[in-house]
Amino acid sequence: MDIAYYNGKVTVYQDMSFPITDRAVFFGDGIYDAAIGKDGEIYLEREHTERFIGTAKRLGIPLPLSEGELPLLLRDTVKKSGEECYMVYFHLTRSGRKREHAVATMDGSNLLITVTKIPFPDENECIRLVSYPDERYGYCNIKTLNLLPSVMAATYARSFGADEAVFIRDGVVTECAHSNISIIKGDTLYTHPKSNRILGGIMREKLIEACREIGVNVVERSFGKAEIFAADATLVTSSTKLCRQAFELDGEPLRCKTDGLGQKLTKMLHFSFSNF
Amino acid sequence: MDIAYYNGKVTVYQDMSFPITDRAVFFGDGIYDAAIGKDGEIYLEREHTERFIGTAKRLGIPLPLSEGELPLLLRDTVKKSGEECYMVYFHLTRSGRKREHAVATMDGSNLLITVTKIPFPDENECIRLVSYPDERYGYCNIKTLNLLPSVMAATYARSFGADEAVFIRDGVVTECAHSNISIIKGDTLYTHPKSNRILGGIMREKLIEACREIGVNVVERSFGKAEIFAADATLVTSSTKLCRQAFELDGEPLRCKTDGLGQKLTKMLHFSFSNF
Repeated sequence: MDIAYYNGKVTVYQDMSFPITDRAVFFGDGIYDAAIGKDGEIYLEREHTERFIGTAKRLGIPLPLSEGELPLLLRDTVKKSGEECYMVYFHLTRSGRKREHAVATMDGSNLLITVTKIPFPDENECIRLVSYPDERYGYCNIKTLNLLPSVMAATYARSFGADEAVFIRDGVVTECAHSNISIIKGDTLYTHPKSNRILGGIMREKLIEACREIGVNVVERSFGKAEIFAADATLVTSSTKLCRQAFELDGEPLRCKTDGLGQKLTKMLHFSFSNF
Repeated sequence: MDIAYYNGKVTVYQDMSFPITDRAVFFGDGIYDAAIGKDGEIYLEREHTERFIGTAKRLGIPLPLSEGELPLLLRDTVKKSGEECYMVYFHLTRSGRKREHAVATMDGSNLLITVTKIPFPDENECIRLVSYPDERYGYCNIKTLNLLPSVMAATYARSFGADEAVFIRDGVVTECAHSNISIIKGDTLYTHPKSNRILGGIMREKLIEACREIGVNVVERSFGKAEIFAADATLVTSSTKLCRQAFELDGEPLRCKTDGLGQKLTKMLHFSFSNF
């Protein structure tokens, strides 16, 4: 059953509601994280909760519970849902008694957790990409609720029957609407370096680790669209879909082999989830 | 009494709540406008409602009522509040049954209106400014709920006892956290041209009109911080505060005369509100 937790209250997902004092409503003034899990556990729980706490600190949003209590509450909410494979989404927003841009320090915060059923991630799923201009702000490395440019890009992608949008800024591929993107050329993986232009995803780190494990070189440098077409494989990573190869960009085919390095790395990341 | 309207329901402001299907909560997926008014009327009602409808169209968010019904509903909500001088804030958000970035076209929209008491705008209020890096996205000309950079800037300003933050991007003054900024030098007004880097405010247009009325030249071109210090007056305009002169930027004094062109234009804009 999909469920939601908000400031101590637990309901069926669709029944949850938020007060006007939640500044998500007026400003998107909040941060979030999301992980997947199975059988009562949360995959890479420590990485996700630590990133969430770090993001909250960065924006000065106080946690309404101790850092140690957060994973316990997430797991407790997972148990209440009773699902076998799920996404755990959690966000922290600022409170404000009236609508004013400047934050009043005494108004506290709100914690939302949702647990929703998802299909088991499919290591053989290959995806179609379209490019979209990256007009996002300079805080892409902070996981905030100001997601309208990603909404616009993802909606554009869907209108073309694509699965993800690839952001391009000044000729450089930064990341996707809700994933990171990397390419393999020969025995080397290229991925955009961590900066304020991308959200350095947890699965991006896992991909880098997997490369090092099997002796694939990793070069953290940006690349353009032409390099995607010239690549041997294009890998799209995210915490909810883990890793997927792309087979098309803007209607043109990409190299996407079922026996290459791209598929090997994809399988390694899915194996890691299956066996955690 | 401060009140709120949401999808047909009217409550005391503090009692309003929003369902989890309102995509403002997860993505800031919505647009807004705000005007002030007095004695049952809304100042520049046509300008604000037309801009709101245009913004909604631009993002493809369907209005849940006809264009002609919107001003009638705003005025009806104003009457229910019973206040003498108020801000009318209205926003339109997308609905979505589940949290996914791409918009499902059939999920409709939500209309929120709030009417909150404000003090009568003061033509003699002079303000203190601080500068802040403009790291906003490339859709600043669209009035959306993705306002976190403005929240950060306004909070920073408040921490220094300042009233507004001046965004500076690559050495260029764009606008303020929730106002436009213009300077007067000699008999000329300079203001950033309309582009995707500023929200071309309605009061900015009124200021330009006022200049033309009294023979002040208007040059729509960008300027830097040094030009603010060299200016004869700095004018900060917004729909809720109308027009205010600034007397300080980053702790340094600005020219701010009670008998100059800056004060004359400020008075004209306030006179217009007092007598509408």
